[in-house]
Amino acid sequence: MDKLFHVIEAQQFDRPLLSELFAVTKEMEEVVSRYGSNILSRRLMASLFYEPSTRTRLSFESAMMRLGGQVVTTESAREFSSAAKGETLEDTIRIAEGYSDVIVIRHYESGSARRAAEVASVPIINAGDGPGQHPTQALLDVYTIQKEIGRLDNFKIAMVGDLANGRTVRSLAYLLSKYDGVKIFFVAPRVVRMKDDIKAHLDEHGIEWEEADDLIAVARDVDVVYQTRIQRERFGDRIEDYEQARGKYVIDQTVMEALLESSVVLHPLPRVDEIVPEVDGDPRSAYFRQAHNGLYIRMALLQMVLES
Amino acid sequence: MDKLFHVIEAQQFDRPLLSELFAVTKEMEEVVSRYGSNILSRRLMASLFYEPSTRTRLSFESAMMRLGGQVVTTESAREFSSAAKGETLEDTIRIAEGYSDVIVIRHYESGSARRAAEVASVPIINAGDGPGQHPTQALLDVYTIQKEIGRLDNFKIAMVGDLANGRTVRSLAYLLSKYDGVKIFFVAPRVVRMKDDIKAHLDEHGIEWEEADDLIAVARDVDVVYQTRIQRERFGDRIEDYEQARGKYVIDQTVMEALLESSVVLHPLPRVDEIVPEVDGDPRSAYFRQAHNGLYIRMALLQMVLES
Amino acid sequence: MDKLFHVIEAQQFDRPLLSELFAVTKEMEEVVSRYGSNILSRRLMASLFYEPSTRTRLSFESAMMRLGGQVVTTESAREFSSAAKGETLEDTIRIAEGYSDVIVIRHYESGSARRAAEVASVPIINAGDGPGQHPTQALLDVYTIQKEIGRLDNFKIAMVGDLANGRTVRSLAYLLSKYDGVKIFFVAPRVVRMKDDIKAHLDEHGIEWEEADDLIAVARDVDVVYQTRIQRERFGDRIEDYEQARGKYVIDQTVMEALLESSVVLHPLPRVDEIVPEVDGDPRSAYFRQAHNGLYIRMALLQMVLES
Repeated sequence: MDKLFHVIEAQQFDRPLLSELFAVTKEMEEVVSRYGSNILSRRLMASLFYEPSTRTRLSFESAMMRLGGQVVTTESAREFSSAAKGETLEDTIRIAEGYSDVIVIRHYESGSARRAAEVASVPIINAGDGPGQHPTQALLDVYTIQKEIGRLDNFKIAMVGDLANGRTVRSLAYLLSKYDGVKIFFVAPRVVRMKDDIKAHLDEHGIEWEEADDLIAVARDVDVVYQTRIQRERFGDRIEDYEQARGKYVIDQTVMEALLESSVVLHPLPRVDEIVPEVDGDPRSAYFRQAHNGLYIRMALLQMVLES
Repeated sequence: MDKLFHVIEAQQFDRPLLSELFAVTKEMEEVVSRYGSNILSRRLMASLFYEPSTRTRLSFESAMMRLGGQVVTTESAREFSSAAKGETLEDTIRIAEGYSDVIVIRHYESGSARRAAEVASVPIINAGDGPGQHPTQALLDVYTIQKEIGRLDNFKIAMVGDLANGRTVRSLAYLLSKYDGVKIFFVAPRVVRMKDDIKAHLDEHGIEWEEADDLIAVARDVDVVYQTRIQRERFGDRIEDYEQARGKYVIDQTVMEALLESSVVLHPLPRVDEIVPEVDGDPRSAYFRQAHNGLYIRMALLQMVLES
Repeated sequence: MDKLFHVIEAQQFDRPLLSELFAVTKEMEEVVSRYGSNILSRRLMASLFYEPSTRTRLSFESAMMRLGGQVVTTESAREFSSAAKGETLEDTIRIAEGYSDVIVIRHYESGSARRAAEVASVPIINAGDGPGQHPTQALLDVYTIQKEIGRLDNFKIAMVGDLANGRTVRSLAYLLSKYDGVKIFFVAPRVVRMKDDIKAHLDEHGIEWEEADDLIAVARDVDVVYQTRIQRERFGDRIEDYEQARGKYVIDQTVMEALLESSVVLHPLPRVDEIVPEVDGDPRSAYFRQAHNGLYIRMALLQMVLES
């Protein structure tokens, strides 16, 4: 198996690599419970964020520190290439690799992480590049499913909410297509249905899927409900469409009553009102545990790309 | 004595807890003089600042590092709950506690620190919540008085300047009401006099107070002069009122001549022109020493809330 | 030799101090190749940036961390002295020295670093003060010349581009005037020629210089070509002047063909289009190596000012 170096997109992970990653991730839960380790001491991570994404940035930085590493950070990386200066991303990366051992990059343009990786002599980890990829989110989602329901083959999942624009559900669908016996229900308002490219990809990999309207009926049948936020910013002037989409599928007490005792609710967060706070205390509400898994996944990736 | 966990407001500290805190704070001066310790090594602090307050943030972060701990930080925490995303403070805290051992929060809304503490499983330290509390400032003020004049019972203090809007003088008055034989002189321009709620609180606790106009006369009589800045931003359009209030009570050479040899001048800083720079070199000008005590108080609080 | 304390301007370095600095800098290359050291463990650096300069800030912070030190940082130091608050730089420094062992300051006003040094009890390092000085850039330039061509006496250098506004070429000229047998060619568009003060300084120190128009002819003759960016922001409304200046002297394949095998091209970066990316792979293109030397120079300075 090739050693992991750059982490650019979810698709670069095959089943053996996912298994290895998840094994290391599980060890990381142990490491955190003893307040970290020193295995990355004297290693330095640069967080180059071209747009703020505080939750992702702090999760990566905490991951590095929990392993004994250090961090230099900016949320104004855009300043490098300001109008007056006009430096290319490639030049910025060549400079940043001079003072760091790994670069975590968040960029507003799709494909930026790949461009960075093409010139970098240190590992690049993609922390989201515009409408493109956000691989650590997809990886933590899959890890969470395995941890919560005990398996990645032979299970049923409902993807709910904004399936047209949601980067996370798209990446998750790609990753799940590597497993066997998965069935996906798409439960989305008409205006934000799952796009055809994903459906074609699933067909090609023999993954069963169907579109459904009745969230209660689906909830009775699945192991995982993956809820997502209807993203206001994607609707522009179409306020009516947004308002209609927004209220249509909400996880509330009624949905939780339909859900099996052994099933769980996930959400990439942040949430607005698509999951009511009243169900937060239900042990099947796994979205905060899911968020915490992001730390372990990022620790595992940092260790894997930096181990000599 | 209950173990200290969340630090939300000055009033939660009673005399025994203040004594314990100040004893630990004194040890911290020793620790800093030997360039820090490692007692909080592998502990991680998250600075969640919803508005910039660079001096407070750097003081907390330095405190954590001087004890061997690490820090993840943001001055744009407001981005979590941006219009488009709409995440609640409670959700943000539940996520942040997944990657930190203590959260220092600065927020623009009164009561935010308490709301954070209600859901947090890690200690929350309030670094100022809007017009509400800024407990570490009040604690460092009281510590400074003890250190500079050697006692917290039986002394006289003048509070000067903007007593109506000043968060620090209000919190200080609350804390001093726990001690015996304290007398407070309020020396304020008419438009920014101390409010009745504080006066009532002092009466209730048997603390003597009076309003005075003549700063020189008061300076001759007190152990501590606590000067404050007239806050331009509180006056809105009332420029005339501001200009009148601003120049009325200034600490200059004349005031220093009136002051006893054993007395001191404090100020929460930043200052504008309510203390002239010419008196900075006077050994009784204790405001920079006071600012430095902030580091020791914050180190002591971090150690107390994190010790297992 | 006096111990180095504040680092304010390039001129404070004489030849013996430069030699010592470069010897320590060379050791630092070794230190980085073994992933750092712990000699500055428990030392704390404060980065006070009154304007963003991400590349300089991250380089300093990485330098401190590679030596085992810790960092507190702000890019919004301007907030200290905001209109409403009005704190002086001197007061800010007196507070910041309470929680740090060395202060790296970037300011928009010329002379700020010197003002800071006048009140500070900890070392101040100037990371650029407006149109004034940026001494670590000048020092890394000289170090790079020594490293790339093996000597600082008896060589020829072409300074190309915006010589009127370029802070780096001016500082470099000052430093080179301390060496013997240096000849400088100024190759600049008419509107941004080197100013008379520098020419007079060089005359005074017996440094030969001449102005030249033909970059190819000069390239055939020199050991170092030091290219600089034409700074759009310096031209204001004079767009035509800018466009004319900008395209006049570009390092491309033709210039590289004229250049001697043993010569090198430097640039303080960022570049826009005054060096074409096609020549990046040429071993004589030394500008990224030059940028990396910034880390070693800053490590050396931090060690020298902090060693007890």
